[in-house]
Amino acid sequence: MTELPGGALPDVTPLPGLPVRVRIVEVGPRDGLQNEKTAIPTSAKLTFIDRLGAAGLRTIEATSFVNPAWVPQLADAEQVFGAIARRNGVRYPVLVPNAEGLRRAVDCGAQEIAVFGSATEAFAQHNLAQSLDGQFEMFAPVVAEAVARGMTVRGYLSMCFGDPWEGRVPVPQVVSAGRRLLDMGCAELSLGDTVGVATAGQVTALIGAFSAAGVGAGRLAVHFHDTYGQALANTLAALRCGVATVDASAGGLGGCPFAKSATGNLATEDLVWFLSGLGIEHGVDLDALVATSVWMAGILGRPSPSAVVRALADG
Amino acid sequence: MTELPGGALPDVTPLPGLPVRVRIVEVGPRDGLQNEKTAIPTSAKLTFIDRLGAAGLRTIEATSFVNPAWVPQLADAEQVFGAIARRNGVRYPVLVPNAEGLRRAVDCGAQEIAVFGSATEAFAQHNLAQSLDGQFEMFAPVVAEAVARGMTVRGYLSMCFGDPWEGRVPVPQVVSAGRRLLDMGCAELSLGDTVGVATAGQVTALIGAFSAAGVGAGRLAVHFHDTYGQALANTLAALRCGVATVDASAGGLGGCPFAKSATGNLATEDLVWFLSGLGIEHGVDLDALVATSVWMAGILGRPSPSAVVRALADG
Repeated sequence: MTELPGGALPDVTPLPGLPVRVRIVEVGPRDGLQNEKTAIPTSAKLTFIDRLGAAGLRTIEATSFVNPAWVPQLADAEQVFGAIARRNGVRYPVLVPNAEGLRRAVDCGAQEIAVFGSATEAFAQHNLAQSLDGQFEMFAPVVAEAVARGMTVRGYLSMCFGDPWEGRVPVPQVVSAGRRLLDMGCAELSLGDTVGVATAGQVTALIGAFSAAGVGAGRLAVHFHDTYGQALANTLAALRCGVATVDASAGGLGGCPFAKSATGNLATEDLVWFLSGLGIEHGVDLDALVATSVWMAGILGRPSPSAVVRALADG
Repeated sequence: MTELPGGALPDVTPLPGLPVRVRIVEVGPRDGLQNEKTAIPTSAKLTFIDRLGAAGLRTIEATSFVNPAWVPQLADAEQVFGAIARRNGVRYPVLVPNAEGLRRAVDCGAQEIAVFGSATEAFAQHNLAQSLDGQFEMFAPVVAEAVARGMTVRGYLSMCFGDPWEGRVPVPQVVSAGRRLLDMGCAELSLGDTVGVATAGQVTALIGAFSAAGVGAGRLAVHFHDTYGQALANTLAALRCGVATVDASAGGLGGCPFAKSATGNLATEDLVWFLSGLGIEHGVDLDALVATSVWMAGILGRPSPSAVVRALADG
């Protein structure tokens, strides 16, 4: 693996003021794969999920019960979710876009779902065919029913830091949209930089604005894309604000089918290197994770964009 | 360029406690190109330097007066340095490894040089064929003569955060080596993470240790490689400590010929996006810089590894 003696791990030097432990929400099987053009066998998705669990990831977003016509890659949601070799202590949330998606998720026995909202009017229309207000009207009964069934619901909020159609997104607008998701029953809000344009000051300002509006960092997660190389610097800024839940995608897989400039998610491996170096607990076996991403890169037919995967996979 | 309305620049949201202005030391023509296997025409190097200056970079490390047998790519140091179309207000330092290199630099009229030391015994031997102590005996008369001639001298210190042969590098050893370069007359010390393994806590701890040893952040620069994707997060950590000089390489070019796992430098474009978003002055025209890196990528025959270049060059 690496040339460094002692194995593929950085030296540990903590930085005061950061969380003791970070919960990584692994979104590779859903956010990572949804945009892939070539069909990935259901069996490969199941192996992927299983290897991610074996590598120590404890929250693995498994699939999406979206309309298969919109995201053909995830048309096998039932087959995938029904066949996961479940591990003790591992959560397998699924994305649910609407009432029909919730019905399918419930039928499969899902216990944890996520809804995917937009902080902007334009992306609500492009991604959901809804207005900014209309999306909340669509989500509200879905979230209410899920909560009534005892399910845990996460709210994603996309385009929190910039929108390819609207440009700058006003902070109060993001806070208002996020609060609507939380107020309708979401237990956690994941702030998405869908096009990867955010920088560290924006991250700090937005988390501060949520705090001022009564939403503490403990209810927030961050979801960064590495389009402009800023994802890990933004993560550092978020951790300094007390956020301790970070979304990432094994191997840096992912993007968004309805936002052209959205490239890969923050790679879980790069995040793990970062957290390990800071002495922040995460529970992930980096070598096992890198091996998983190398294997998936073989299935996809192209190398992983993750810096850590490239550094450690060379032999 | 980007889909974002208003041009290829991020929104500006400052982060308290960071420097108002950062001086970027552009190392592309030297550190970026030295490891390239295919010969790059002298005329292309000159165009590269000229375009970097036109893009607003004010410190451009132009070449190295190293033994051409060691670094054949820079065998045209005299031709390059002698033919630069100098711009007002732009500094063109050159690397000088020893007394012979200084003689060549002086003959060419160089006014600013850099020496390249190692924080570890193993890398001093591999890169310089010197012991850790021996390198300082080699540098001392070079630096003394340069200072006596009125030249400005920068000291690079490599392997500050990890070494491929020795592993962990003790902080006191790095501080001691760095102080020796400063004490012999270097005006500035550039702390190099030559193999890119550092994380943000190490950066903070090392800069703090220098401060405790009487070397303030104003005399320090940071020089990160993106091997493990940490360069920009580490830069954020360094800026928080008051460092305001950052080395970067246009397009993320670079590496080290004598350290296998050393991949590209922090890309200047990724740094510029980061600084622009934070409202930190840097003076660089990002579009002109991206166009320069796209042009150089064409000469090298492979795409730039910079995330920003990839995001903005797509058309």
